[in-house]
Amino acid sequence: MTSTLILLRHGQSDWNEKNLFTGWVDVRLTEQGEREARRAGELLAESGLKPHVSYTSVLSRAIQTANLALDTADRLWIPVKRSWRLNERHYGALQGKDKAQTLEEFGEELFMTWRRSFDVPPPPLADDSEWSQVGDERYDGLGDEMPRTESLKLVIDRLLPYWQSEITADLAGGRTVLVTAHGNSLRALVKHLDGISDEDIAGLNIPTGIPLVYELGEDFMPVKPGEYLDPEAAAAGAAAVAAQGKR
Amino acid sequence: MTSTLILLRHGQSDWNEKNLFTGWVDVRLTEQGEREARRAGELLAESGLKPHVSYTSVLSRAIQTANLALDTADRLWIPVKRSWRLNERHYGALQGKDKAQTLEEFGEELFMTWRRSFDVPPPPLADDSEWSQVGDERYDGLGDEMPRTESLKLVIDRLLPYWQSEITADLAGGRTVLVTAHGNSLRALVKHLDGISDEDIAGLNIPTGIPLVYELGEDFMPVKPGEYLDPEAAAAGAAAVAAQGKR
Repeated sequence: MTSTLILLRHGQSDWNEKNLFTGWVDVRLTEQGEREARRAGELLAESGLKPHVSYTSVLSRAIQTANLALDTADRLWIPVKRSWRLNERHYGALQGKDKAQTLEEFGEELFMTWRRSFDVPPPPLADDSEWSQVGDERYDGLGDEMPRTESLKLVIDRLLPYWQSEITADLAGGRTVLVTAHGNSLRALVKHLDGISDEDIAGLNIPTGIPLVYELGEDFMPVKPGEYLDPEAAAAGAAAVAAQGKR
Repeated sequence: MTSTLILLRHGQSDWNEKNLFTGWVDVRLTEQGEREARRAGELLAESGLKPHVSYTSVLSRAIQTANLALDTADRLWIPVKRSWRLNERHYGALQGKDKAQTLEEFGEELFMTWRRSFDVPPPPLADDSEWSQVGDERYDGLGDEMPRTESLKLVIDRLLPYWQSEITADLAGGRTVLVTAHGNSLRALVKHLDGISDEDIAGLNIPTGIPLVYELGEDFMPVKPGEYLDPEAAAAGAAAVAAQGKR
């Protein structure tokens, strides 16, 4: 019996629009982002896929996206689970900084290393920064696990235990699970599912607002390649993500 | 240590506006209902109350209300739990019927008995009615518990076990819980909390969109009377509910 995993990256946020590094800063969707979320719900409804459980990060832009998509797909009533382990990568000292300005200030090599290297995190964010999440009540339970910066590798380290202990338990028995999250937490999950190497993951971009559907075997690994519900829009969206930060 | 319980009745729905008996039919909020939900979120934010957990029924109008209120109060990220045990009273064969027309057809005595008697349910709804929820996936697990009609007494019978096993567990330790639900499921809970008699509960009307706050002792019973966050609007709202069905 196969299970169905649906991955959904939130649409445009206030800081996507302003081209700022966001990470764990809790910004909201723009109106375009809300439209993208409703469109994702339409794609779900048209596909006939019916999620049994909805997972989100604890960041508003992912929760707004899941709420709008599920409302549009008439599945508002399904059980909801949230975890910081699905959060976007913590961008460290880059949080709140302009992407184009960072590129100019530090040069393309460092900029691309921080954005795309597998295991080099940006410098840590100071706890007294206005963009720090230290002291935010939603992270009260984290203790020593509270990050001040993360590489993609560190995102994988905190995400996979949750995948293995929680999400796969809800997939068992042929069920359908929707995971609404972020560019880098979804890249982390896709790296695991598709067995992408530490080198090749740099080239993977996930478009916003287009459900990516995997059919999983009993080992919770794909039985065939994942498919976007709107492949043309997905290809265009991935290209747009790859171009971010370029002037 | 006391805990805080916040009760919130959803705002105007499509069928409230049309003056139809709704019960378990899954209608949506009107724009006015959405405004009421956001206003409830403003009242929460102004009060300084910070819910740790959000409970809703599995009906869209309550879920929409909780989503909008928590979004407005910047608490979208809190854990969410849903149960059919918080649903509106199942209105049996009255579901889908016009309230004023029902009043005219059956007379005020039967009409008021069905609306307000403690233990006389309306006639059961046929499973092949277009307004039946039999076969609705969200109730798959109910089996023999699936109602075809309910009195307020039957609502209490299915709600209190959930209150005692689930909601009070989340209140323990001085926490704050938001319960977003419906006129009759909230009347059932208030009857328990305030020790209202089977006779006197007929006179209790709960207004829409205004948080009702209880401080609870370690036995999860009120240490003082519950208070609406906007008492003037609450009194006007309760009077409007009492007048429903009158021409």
